Amino acid sequence: MSLTTKARYAALRETILDVMERQIGTSGLSGLGMRSIAKTVGCSPGMIYKIGVDQDGLILMVNARTLDAIGARLRNAVTAADRPQVAMRNMALAYVDYAQEQTPRWDALFSHRMADERPVPTWYARKRDAMFQDLAAVVARAVEDASIQQRGEFSRMLFSAVHGVVTLGLQQKIGRVSPAKLRQQVRDLVDVMAAGLSHLSRPEATAPQSS
Amino acid sequence: MSLTTKARYAALRETILDVMERQIGTSGLSGLGMRSIAKTVGCSPGMIYKIGVDQDGLILMVNARTLDAIGARLRNAVTAADRPQVAMRNMALAYVDYAQEQTPRWDALFSHRMADERPVPTWYARKRDAMFQDLAAVVARAVEDASIQQRGEFSRMLFSAVHGVVTLGLQQKIGRVSPAKLRQQVRDLVDVMAAGLSHLSRPEATAPQSS
Repeated sequence: MSLTTKARYAALRETILDVMERQIGTSGLSGLGMRSIAKTVGCSPGMIYKIGVDQDGLILMVNARTLDAIGARLRNAVTAADRPQVAMRNMALAYVDYAQEQTPRWDALFSHRMADERPVPTWYARKRDAMFQDLAAVVARAVEDASIQQRGEFSRMLFSAVHGVVTLGLQQKIGRVSPAKLRQQVRDLVDVMAAGLSHLSRPEATAPQSS
Repeated sequence: MSLTTKARYAALRETILDVMERQIGTSGLSGLGMRSIAKTVGCSPGMIYKIGVDQDGLILMVNARTLDAIGARLRNAVTAADRPQVAMRNMALAYVDYAQEQTPRWDALFSHRMADERPVPTWYARKRDAMFQDLAAVVARAVEDASIQQRGEFSRMLFSAVHGVVTLGLQQKIGRVSPAKLRQQVRDLVDVMAAGLSHLSRPEATAPQSS
């Protein structure tokens, strides 16, 4: 492949990603296909296959931009001065805000399934895991005695729990929830979890009894 | 409509629900349509429309059976002797087990969207809310001072948080999670939330500070 052709394909790929990002931002993954992408970009479907990335790969690239956007929001929500609970709460509220403002784009992160249940590529898994490192840094301040592994587990626990409230809330799945009410639910959840984490991580705390 | 016709339509409806329940139990909502249902039942698509329930209505009826099954599992997971934390944990684990054993059926509860974003009918909302009453009764034992409204909110919070962990875990969305690991994550989450709830609900507890 000549350098000019390589540059031309790279430019086409960027154009395609921009177009897909807009489409996903408006209507999520529904209706997204190589044919419709080619049509919007204004090239032949055959041309898209020449850039060397399949549809899953393209969607992951757009989803990676979404991860970057969410990561930036979470980082911006926290200042060094925040007490750990407040920092966790602010990160969670930033996540709710993003999901409410960019619902189709946010939804595409979670509704995308790799063809043939292949695992996501390493570059994508790394980017996703990087988001949890920011969260883990904040969790670490709340549970000072926790090991690095525990911090990772707590940050995934916190994220998953908040994600559950946001998902069921935005889909109105367990009753009607207004945007303000959803924010309140997330604040309450983070307060309960922060209290539980700090209580359980104190050395003198009674360990939860087994059944 | 004569009585015989009425009885015939009612019998057809039951047959359709049984067929749909099996289809949803195998492959979820994907590929489900009036045409495919008619084909499997062995009647004409026109015949299905005569029973007076549209596709959303039929799916809700199957999902209601799923709600019944989950509700029964949650009730069976709890004995009066369980301490509140243990009861909450056992309910959460029963929920994980159901989602793992009946993934397509469980998924259908959450992936179904009403046409034109209509709200779900009252009979369905009532059945769904009844499930939270069982959970609220258990939560009530953990937070004795909570008002009835708070109990309802706490039980929805607990459910949503557990649901978030189960959803992201089963979809392997934030990393690979084995079935045993998923159960452990849910246990840990319930322990943290139970500790947080009981800590925050104690009169002498420091209220979480506002930012």
